[in-house]
Amino acid sequence: MAIVVNLEEERGKKPASLDGLTALVSADLDKVNHCIVDRMHSPVALIPQLAGHIIAAGGKRLRPMLTLAATKLCGHEGERHIKLAACVEFIHTATLLHDDVVDDSSLRRGLASANALWGNKASVLVGDFLFSRSFELMIEDGSLAVLQILSRASSVIAEGEVLQLITANDTGTGEDAYLEVIRAKTAALFAAACRIGAVVADRPKVEEEALESYGLNLGIAFQLIDDVLDYSARQEKLGKAIGDDFREGKITLPVILAFRRGDDEERAFLKRTLEDLDQAEDGSDLTRALKLLEKHNSLADTINRARHYGAIARDALGIFPDSPAKTALTDIIDFCIERAF
Amino acid sequence: MAIVVNLEEERGKKPASLDGLTALVSADLDKVNHCIVDRMHSPVALIPQLAGHIIAAGGKRLRPMLTLAATKLCGHEGERHIKLAACVEFIHTATLLHDDVVDDSSLRRGLASANALWGNKASVLVGDFLFSRSFELMIEDGSLAVLQILSRASSVIAEGEVLQLITANDTGTGEDAYLEVIRAKTAALFAAACRIGAVVADRPKVEEEALESYGLNLGIAFQLIDDVLDYSARQEKLGKAIGDDFREGKITLPVILAFRRGDDEERAFLKRTLEDLDQAEDGSDLTRALKLLEKHNSLADTINRARHYGAIARDALGIFPDSPAKTALTDIIDFCIERAF
Repeated sequence: MAIVVNLEEERGKKPASLDGLTALVSADLDKVNHCIVDRMHSPVALIPQLAGHIIAAGGKRLRPMLTLAATKLCGHEGERHIKLAACVEFIHTATLLHDDVVDDSSLRRGLASANALWGNKASVLVGDFLFSRSFELMIEDGSLAVLQILSRASSVIAEGEVLQLITANDTGTGEDAYLEVIRAKTAALFAAACRIGAVVADRPKVEEEALESYGLNLGIAFQLIDDVLDYSARQEKLGKAIGDDFREGKITLPVILAFRRGDDEERAFLKRTLEDLDQAEDGSDLTRALKLLEKHNSLADTINRARHYGAIARDALGIFPDSPAKTALTDIIDFCIERAF
Repeated sequence: MAIVVNLEEERGKKPASLDGLTALVSADLDKVNHCIVDRMHSPVALIPQLAGHIIAAGGKRLRPMLTLAATKLCGHEGERHIKLAACVEFIHTATLLHDDVVDDSSLRRGLASANALWGNKASVLVGDFLFSRSFELMIEDGSLAVLQILSRASSVIAEGEVLQLITANDTGTGEDAYLEVIRAKTAALFAAACRIGAVVADRPKVEEEALESYGLNLGIAFQLIDDVLDYSARQEKLGKAIGDDFREGKITLPVILAFRRGDDEERAFLKRTLEDLDQAEDGSDLTRALKLLEKHNSLADTINRARHYGAIARDALGIFPDSPAKTALTDIIDFCIERAF
């Protein structure tokens, strides 16, 4: 059982997609993919094997595409953005490898996770390798401004992951504390990926900051929708199980809202299932949780929160003149949010 | 029971120590320690707690001291080496945190390891944080040459760790393959720590390369002696248990030599204990292994191999004029090797 979130206002609109973005950057993205394959090479065969597994498993390459589109928006004519987009994907992939170890995940994008196939140890070390390799790529590019942005993002991501770890399974986590976590662990890399587009194009600070704000708010919206998807029927269509976050006792915004809006009995239920991880094996607790989220409008309101950040992201692009890149970047916002439906 | 390695030629000499080095760099090292404490700060309290535990647990700060001494050798007058020495220690500490996770270690320098106290997850993530923070520090320094050297070292370390992971518990590992592992996982950071001394002092390439060679060969010698210590009575004086490597089935040079020099029955014994990790609980297998190492002169010959690399390190410094820094750097070689006695 799953909740189908389907707000009236969404009906009848053409569904948002990444098609515009994909068309805009497809030639560059091919080059990025070549660069990724080329640079994950190592004489130690396990490294390209393991890294190749997670990188080939795909994902949408959303973060490097953001770098490519932001660069286009800023009118850069050179090739520097190719390597930097690959850097961004390497940092993201390193984070995923370490995340799966930290979360004990056995699946990633519907396939066996790297740690399930090669063990946690290899995943930790290949993550370290990709992370170091991303810095080598940046250094080849040679811009200290870019290095500053991406290294700062890496520190912030790690900080966010630690914060998430220590607030895990704490139903007392408030919305602001949660936002701080996702701002760090997810949105910081979106922000950096976008900002470096303005840096390579040598655009004024105000455009750098606009792109950073766009990326940051898009990243927050993206993560909030990810959290909704984990409880939504839409998830099943993407080949993922519903309720992974619930089973792990992850405290995400839908749960935070339900906890705050619930009565004592409902809170006791959430504490037992999410803090103590005492969950019925027959799935009846997940069913009850889904009903609770529905009762308190938690998923729909999480989507509304995401819309708020999406709107900030949209306005951040206001200073740029209209262009196909701007349209593509705007469409990403809609795509990220409409994934929920 | 343990083997006391005590070669005749060592008798009667004044024991080598780090005193000369410590005196030479103590003022700078204080600044490095301040920088370390300052830069491991984070609003996420667990980060300075966990990082502080492993950094305060001490160790000799050998790697940052190498940077400080190499910088002095090259006559640098500024303050850049302080931050860079802190970077080197951060990279080293990040590596230790991830190593302990990969090795499932419960002790580090005689104290409970960070992963034993805070769990593997926190250790992975705080390692990532320190690693990112080290890059931020380097970027503040602003030298692309330094960034290149340290980021390359980081990639090589990760590569070496993966290589070690996949060759683990394989008694077929040869001396060359083993050397390749320790060159990457240990010596690369020693080499980088030394080389950046010449870079900050803006010295010619030939001096950079001399310091890199010094560091690389010192690092190899250091690791070989570490491997000897794990089987030596000297280890007990340092508050560490004998035979940790044996219990984990680590294939180090003493074992490689014994395996190659042994007969079929002895090889079968090493395969059972190190590959299959089938070891008697009463410690009798460790006792037998120690006798085997003694019989085949494996510890003494590993020390002889270390001396060889130590000699290369010493010669590498030949192009520098005599100075207190040069004496200190030469003394480190003796210290690293004589730790075995």
